[in-house]
Amino acid sequence: MTTRILALRTTDSAPVDATIDELPALLADPTTLVWVDMLDCGESDRRILEGIFKFHPMVVEDMLADAPTPKLERFDGYLYIVFHALLTGWEKSHELPIGDLDVMLGRNFLLTSHSKLIASVENAWTQVRKKPELMRKGTAYVAYLIADVLSERYLPLMEKLDHEIDALETSIMKDPGPHLLQQIMDLKHKLQRLRRVGLHQREVLNRLSRGDREMEIIPEDVRPFFRDAYDNFVRVVDLNDSFRDIVSSSMEVYLSMQGHKLNEIMKVLTLISTIMLPLTFIAGVYGMNFENMPELHMRWGYYGAWTAMLVTAVGFFTYFKRKKWL
Amino acid sequence: MTTRILALRTTDSAPVDATIDELPALLADPTTLVWVDMLDCGESDRRILEGIFKFHPMVVEDMLADAPTPKLERFDGYLYIVFHALLTGWEKSHELPIGDLDVMLGRNFLLTSHSKLIASVENAWTQVRKKPELMRKGTAYVAYLIADVLSERYLPLMEKLDHEIDALETSIMKDPGPHLLQQIMDLKHKLQRLRRVGLHQREVLNRLSRGDREMEIIPEDVRPFFRDAYDNFVRVVDLNDSFRDIVSSSMEVYLSMQGHKLNEIMKVLTLISTIMLPLTFIAGVYGMNFENMPELHMRWGYYGAWTAMLVTAVGFFTYFKRKKWL
Amino acid sequence: MTTRILALRTTDSAPVDATIDELPALLADPTTLVWVDMLDCGESDRRILEGIFKFHPMVVEDMLADAPTPKLERFDGYLYIVFHALLTGWEKSHELPIGDLDVMLGRNFLLTSHSKLIASVENAWTQVRKKPELMRKGTAYVAYLIADVLSERYLPLMEKLDHEIDALETSIMKDPGPHLLQQIMDLKHKLQRLRRVGLHQREVLNRLSRGDREMEIIPEDVRPFFRDAYDNFVRVVDLNDSFRDIVSSSMEVYLSMQGHKLNEIMKVLTLISTIMLPLTFIAGVYGMNFENMPELHMRWGYYGAWTAMLVTAVGFFTYFKRKKWL
Amino acid sequence: MTTRILALRTTDSAPVDATIDELPALLADPTTLVWVDMLDCGESDRRILEGIFKFHPMVVEDMLADAPTPKLERFDGYLYIVFHALLTGWEKSHELPIGDLDVMLGRNFLLTSHSKLIASVENAWTQVRKKPELMRKGTAYVAYLIADVLSERYLPLMEKLDHEIDALETSIMKDPGPHLLQQIMDLKHKLQRLRRVGLHQREVLNRLSRGDREMEIIPEDVRPFFRDAYDNFVRVVDLNDSFRDIVSSSMEVYLSMQGHKLNEIMKVLTLISTIMLPLTFIAGVYGMNFENMPELHMRWGYYGAWTAMLVTAVGFFTYFKRKKWL
Amino acid sequence: MTTRILALRTTDSAPVDATIDELPALLADPTTLVWVDMLDCGESDRRILEGIFKFHPMVVEDMLADAPTPKLERFDGYLYIVFHALLTGWEKSHELPIGDLDVMLGRNFLLTSHSKLIASVENAWTQVRKKPELMRKGTAYVAYLIADVLSERYLPLMEKLDHEIDALETSIMKDPGPHLLQQIMDLKHKLQRLRRVGLHQREVLNRLSRGDREMEIIPEDVRPFFRDAYDNFVRVVDLNDSFRDIVSSSMEVYLSMQGHKLNEIMKVLTLISTIMLPLTFIAGVYGMNFENMPELHMRWGYYGAWTAMLVTAVGFFTYFKRKKWL
Ligand SMILES: [Mg+2]
Ligand SMILES: [Mg+2]
Ligand SMILES: [Mg+2]
Ligand SMILES: [Mg+2]
Ligand SMILES: [Mg+2]
Ligand SMILES: [Mg+2]
Ligand SMILES: [Mg+2]
Ligand SMILES: [Mg+2]
Ligand SMILES: [Mg+2]
Ligand SMILES: [Mg+2]
Ligand SMILES: [Mg+2]
Ligand SMILES: [Mg+2]
Ligand SMILES: [Mg+2]
Ligand SMILES: [Mg+2]
Ligand SMILES: [Mg+2]
Ligand SMILES: [Mg+2]
Ligand SMILES: [Mg+2]
Ligand SMILES: [Mg+2]
Ligand SMILES: [Mg+2]
Ligand SMILES: [Mg+2]
Ligand SMILES: [Mg+2]
Ligand SMILES: [Mg+2]
Ligand SMILES: [Mg+2]
Ligand SMILES: [Mg+2]
Ligand SMILES: [Mg+2]
Ligand SMILES: [Mg+2]
Ligand SMILES: [Mg+2]
Ligand SMILES: [Mg+2]
Ligand SMILES: [Mg+2]
Ligand SMILES: [Mg+2]
Ligand SMILES: [Mg+2]
Repeated sequence: MTTRILALRTTDSAPVDATIDELPALLADPTTLVWVDMLDCGESDRRILEGIFKFHPMVVEDMLADAPTPKLERFDGYLYIVFHALLTGWEKSHELPIGDLDVMLGRNFLLTSHSKLIASVENAWTQVRKKPELMRKGTAYVAYLIADVLSERYLPLMEKLDHEIDALETSIMKDPGPHLLQQIMDLKHKLQRLRRVGLHQREVLNRLSRGDREMEIIPEDVRPFFRDAYDNFVRVVDLNDSFRDIVSSSMEVYLSMQGHKLNEIMKVLTLISTIMLPLTFIAGVYGMNFENMPELHMRWGYYGAWTAMLVTAVGFFTYFKRKKWL
Repeated sequence: MTTRILALRTTDSAPVDATIDELPALLADPTTLVWVDMLDCGESDRRILEGIFKFHPMVVEDMLADAPTPKLERFDGYLYIVFHALLTGWEKSHELPIGDLDVMLGRNFLLTSHSKLIASVENAWTQVRKKPELMRKGTAYVAYLIADVLSERYLPLMEKLDHEIDALETSIMKDPGPHLLQQIMDLKHKLQRLRRVGLHQREVLNRLSRGDREMEIIPEDVRPFFRDAYDNFVRVVDLNDSFRDIVSSSMEVYLSMQGHKLNEIMKVLTLISTIMLPLTFIAGVYGMNFENMPELHMRWGYYGAWTAMLVTAVGFFTYFKRKKWL
Repeated sequence: MTTRILALRTTDSAPVDATIDELPALLADPTTLVWVDMLDCGESDRRILEGIFKFHPMVVEDMLADAPTPKLERFDGYLYIVFHALLTGWEKSHELPIGDLDVMLGRNFLLTSHSKLIASVENAWTQVRKKPELMRKGTAYVAYLIADVLSERYLPLMEKLDHEIDALETSIMKDPGPHLLQQIMDLKHKLQRLRRVGLHQREVLNRLSRGDREMEIIPEDVRPFFRDAYDNFVRVVDLNDSFRDIVSSSMEVYLSMQGHKLNEIMKVLTLISTIMLPLTFIAGVYGMNFENMPELHMRWGYYGAWTAMLVTAVGFFTYFKRKKWL
Repeated sequence: MTTRILALRTTDSAPVDATIDELPALLADPTTLVWVDMLDCGESDRRILEGIFKFHPMVVEDMLADAPTPKLERFDGYLYIVFHALLTGWEKSHELPIGDLDVMLGRNFLLTSHSKLIASVENAWTQVRKKPELMRKGTAYVAYLIADVLSERYLPLMEKLDHEIDALETSIMKDPGPHLLQQIMDLKHKLQRLRRVGLHQREVLNRLSRGDREMEIIPEDVRPFFRDAYDNFVRVVDLNDSFRDIVSSSMEVYLSMQGHKLNEIMKVLTLISTIMLPLTFIAGVYGMNFENMPELHMRWGYYGAWTAMLVTAVGFFTYFKRKKWL
Repeated sequence: MTTRILALRTTDSAPVDATIDELPALLADPTTLVWVDMLDCGESDRRILEGIFKFHPMVVEDMLADAPTPKLERFDGYLYIVFHALLTGWEKSHELPIGDLDVMLGRNFLLTSHSKLIASVENAWTQVRKKPELMRKGTAYVAYLIADVLSERYLPLMEKLDHEIDALETSIMKDPGPHLLQQIMDLKHKLQRLRRVGLHQREVLNRLSRGDREMEIIPEDVRPFFRDAYDNFVRVVDLNDSFRDIVSSSMEVYLSMQGHKLNEIMKVLTLISTIMLPLTFIAGVYGMNFENMPELHMRWGYYGAWTAMLVTAVGFFTYFKRKKWL
């Protein structure tokens, strides 16, 4: 695991790197802002989490494990937030590669912990180093910088899903087949998963942006920023609901197209049978071996039989034409 | 981009045009009412938005971008409202052409910003110029004038959708075919989109019309006006829900009609097969070449065979008639 | 338009007719109870509504137009209520003929406005004339008298719908056909519309009957009366929900019956084909013209062939019997 | 109608029967507990209800009529509760025989009114007579005694429904037919009705058991008893929801089984047709009367034809075997 | 039945076993923590429950019976909680073997009662004996120790269900048959049951973990622990909802696959019929016995007939190939 620390003292013009050993002193000074970012932290970090930060044991346990859903819990002196970030490479993945981001937000410290590299954290780290004034706006603002990019990164996913669904609908109308069923089910699984993430994450961001008393750790002027991230998840959840509805409908369209094909096949079968069976019957009649069959001895009998058969065929054909079966 | 400004001083009898340079002075006077309308504003307008109006950076960011959904946010000194307006030409469009309308509503100023021409804004601008007393009722009332027309313009859309759905239902009963599936899906997409817009817009108007403390910027006597616009969206959402239900049902009707057609086709096939196969069999029997076949040598054998065949045919025909298959 | 006015002074033993000109004086006296009933009011009545009653302009606009849904709005000094009444003749109508009833309820006045004759208003008018003590209970009680009958008149509609749905279910089981699909869709449309009316009207009556501070215009002892009307709409909405569910299920039953019929048809086709095709084949074999076919020359060959055919037919028949296809 | 009265004075060791004439005196003494049970009360009882008890006219009207749903209304001095009791004999009934039980619960009186005999009332009456200490716990406790048995009597109904649904599912898998559709619809109707009763009754019991200020007529220590009855309806509603879901699914299983049967039938038809048609064709070829057909004159021609036919038949048979159609 | 008691006095270093007779004294001392665990308690334990603990009679009744759902009730001096624990051996069971765990949580006592062995109780008992400091954190913490394991034991069940559903989906795509319908229904039953348990249990844990005044028996610092168990049920309910959706969809996929198979079968039937019927007809024509049939006497007539038949066959075959039916 790797831990990196950024500290911004009121006397410094820019944040500086710090070590774990300096942490207690930094945290003790309420005017110093500290951001600790832990990659892939494990049991060995309990010393920092429980010893230095005095986090509640349950928070530490959750940090060291995978959280099933985004959540927000309020403790004395800090908020514990779990975000779910879309991991890089999701465009090529068949599944939704999502990674936990544990955030502990105190008045003068921010601790982020994740087991995978998370683009929005990297982005915020870089920005904060380049523009110290961003960090000077407080730890909540830095948390927003992360949440902002993290939430915006879900929007291209929604667009990709939109295109996939459009393509699916076109395929169903053009060439319905069982391979599309697999696609539909895969989409449903993805949308289900995204829905679970989206609903909880939206709720977390809603609580962070609301002017609630319980969120007093977030300064009033930073809350609108979280509303911006919240808006993105309003959109994610809205679209997800629409997509689910459309995908369900597309299953019904699939069934309709299948029924349509069956009808087409049956029409051909019925057409051929209905024309051929009477003809075969007529031929069968004149294939009988009765001694006394006057038609057989007529000069134009054979041609008469052909005429009868043609008339029958044309008759049925016209009938079907009128019924719009051809 | 174009910015136009209308200012109404207590000493003036009618609102007058103003320039951006006059803005700071106008806004500083609490008795002067100012309406700034920006068409297609961009980065270059940050000076006005952040410098003169001191809007929260997040509001400015949202204004310069497209908002996914209507929303209402409360800031110190102003409300930030995003409306979604139906754009002119929607009647001929296959999609729902919707444009953002960002509204910043302060006690003595109203700022509207949009990237497309919006009929309800034009309408209010014209009205206000003609009847200064409308503007004198305050900025909230002018915002209502816009919201009123904007919301009413959704009602003809609902009527058009109603007619489309009625026509769809008729087509399904008369001539079901895969082209209707495409129509059903298009309708579903449209209704989904309209639902997202309608639900959020209804909520925004509800909050504007409620006597909440948080909406203190809207004078008590102006709130019932917003309730009027709210009523329109109650209707939009109600109808949208009904339409969704009806369109879903029409898919089931489609499947039923398809099944009905299949049954009809199968009846014909079964009828023809059931009558023809036994006849062909009888003909086949007397086409056999056995030496010892007494019937062949009977004088009326051939006619007997015809009789047998006729009786069989009539028998089956009667059977089907009774089963109501003909 | 027609306006009739009934005024009950504390000194009078019964309500007396009054004219529009007397209205201002009557309303000015808080101990006099006034009921104004307007039929088909229009622009020319603005004088009364805005001039005499001082209603909010938005209320007047709503009164002069059709309201999309029942609603209840509270203003200083009066409540504005929109009821939706089932119009006489609904039993014979294919649609749901519903008419707006606008009610303005003040402490000493009641104004009712409607463009169609409404039975519950007529009923209350007659009752109040006959029994002055009813009017003496206050304007809210008179409003209840109207709401009571108005809400009760929905119950026979629910019964009629119940019977229609029962009849539909029976038809589907007995004789499913596309004409029932039309019936199902018509029912769905009606239930959708009734649901929109029912939900809003129930909510209106709920608010009127609740002991809320905001409903201070309704005396405490009159509220239970509105609860009685509320109960009726609880029932309307409950039944409507059940009906919707049952009608949806009946569509599925329809599809099942259609499938059942298809299976029956296919059984007949399969039965006939399966019995006839082998027989025809056997006949075909002995219709071949090979020189060397010993069976043809046998004395009992012909009868042997018949036996073979019979055995085959009986064999298949027994097979189907066992498969329970006959 | 029959009215019976039970009165328990603080000085008596057991409740004693009383007459209607003694009622006013009994009710006037706050230390005496009175239970009035009215069977099939009618207009003639208005004297008791309005005269002696001073019930609100709306309550009296409701008592004399059938209530559509269970409900709870709070009046000064008493609660008006409508329960829906499962009537004896429900096990054999096709419908859900449910009877109203109107309960007026005052501090020192309990009035129960019903038009059918209700087991839970009988049970409580008997118990209270046998064990006076039960009545001494107060009128609310006696009301609980009734609600307890009344709610428990719904549980065997849920078990019966569970068994019916299990049996239905088995039937669908084994022998699907249209008679099951009728059963499914009957179950749906029953579950719909039970749902309406269950939801409202659960809500009534919830309000009775909650420590709300508005329920001050129920002593704190009696509330947990109502929670016991509430639990039963939590279960009724939970199971009802599950049952509805399962019954809906069973309709889909029915459709699947129907489709399965169709597939089976079509397989047989296809098998027979596919084997027989080519054979018949071969026989037809050698039934042609061309002069120049060398095969006809070959010595083993006939046997060669048989061989060709056998090979064809075996070929198709093997093909189907491989396709797993046999 | 068996009862075991663990008591931790402030003066003791570790909890010690105690007997029922010592209970009253132990409970009387507010500094002593007592855990009473009752296995399979019955009527004979009323003495302990009502006599010593003074539990509300309704609580005692519930304890001695099976609770339909998890629940939480608050009494003076203790909380009554019903958990539903997954019993050991669930992996091999076809049903969901679930056992009640009744928990009475007082400030200085914890009473657990269950009729089956419950792993999470055993686990906590062992832990507490080994590490007395766990018990010293209070009775609420010991209750958490139980709830923690109890809730975690549901997670492997969710995983197993996930795998079962994945396997089901694969089977449906590969080899749809009626046996899968049974599997689908079994899964639905299981998920329904789990949903009932999950929703109520989640709500119970939510209330235990919330900082509500009514839960004052749970110390502030223990609440986050219950949130941990709560998180597990958030996951159980979330997954359950997804599973239900996926299982419902898989029914639709099943129907689609069935339709697909029908289409395949019909294609074969149509193909064979359409090729064979015309050939048989041609053979039939030349099997006619007309005297005057020139073709019969032509030298290459027979071969011409074959050619005609081949051309017809190839024609239809090509047609189907183009229609993508082969
Ligand atoms: Mg973690
Ligand atoms: Mg952003
Ligand atoms: Mg941004
Ligand atoms: Mg990211
Ligand atoms: Mg799309
Ligand atoms: Mg934004
Ligand atoms: Mg914008
Ligand atoms: Mg308007
Ligand atoms: Mg207007
Ligand atoms: Mg517009
Ligand atoms: Mg319509
Ligand atoms: Mg209006
Ligand atoms: Mg009106
Ligand atoms: Mg009534
Ligand atoms: Mg009445
Ligand atoms: Mg009426
Ligand atoms: Mg019915
Ligand atoms: Mg009533
Ligand atoms: Mg469906
Ligand atoms: Mg009654
Ligand atoms: Mg009980
Ligand atoms: Mg009991
Ligand atoms: Mg009973
Ligand atoms: Mg069951
Ligand atoms: Mg209980
Ligand atoms: Mg128990
Ligand atoms: Mg845990
Ligand atoms: Mg643990
Ligand atoms: Mg366990
Ligand atoms: Mg899965
Ligand atoms: Mg946890």
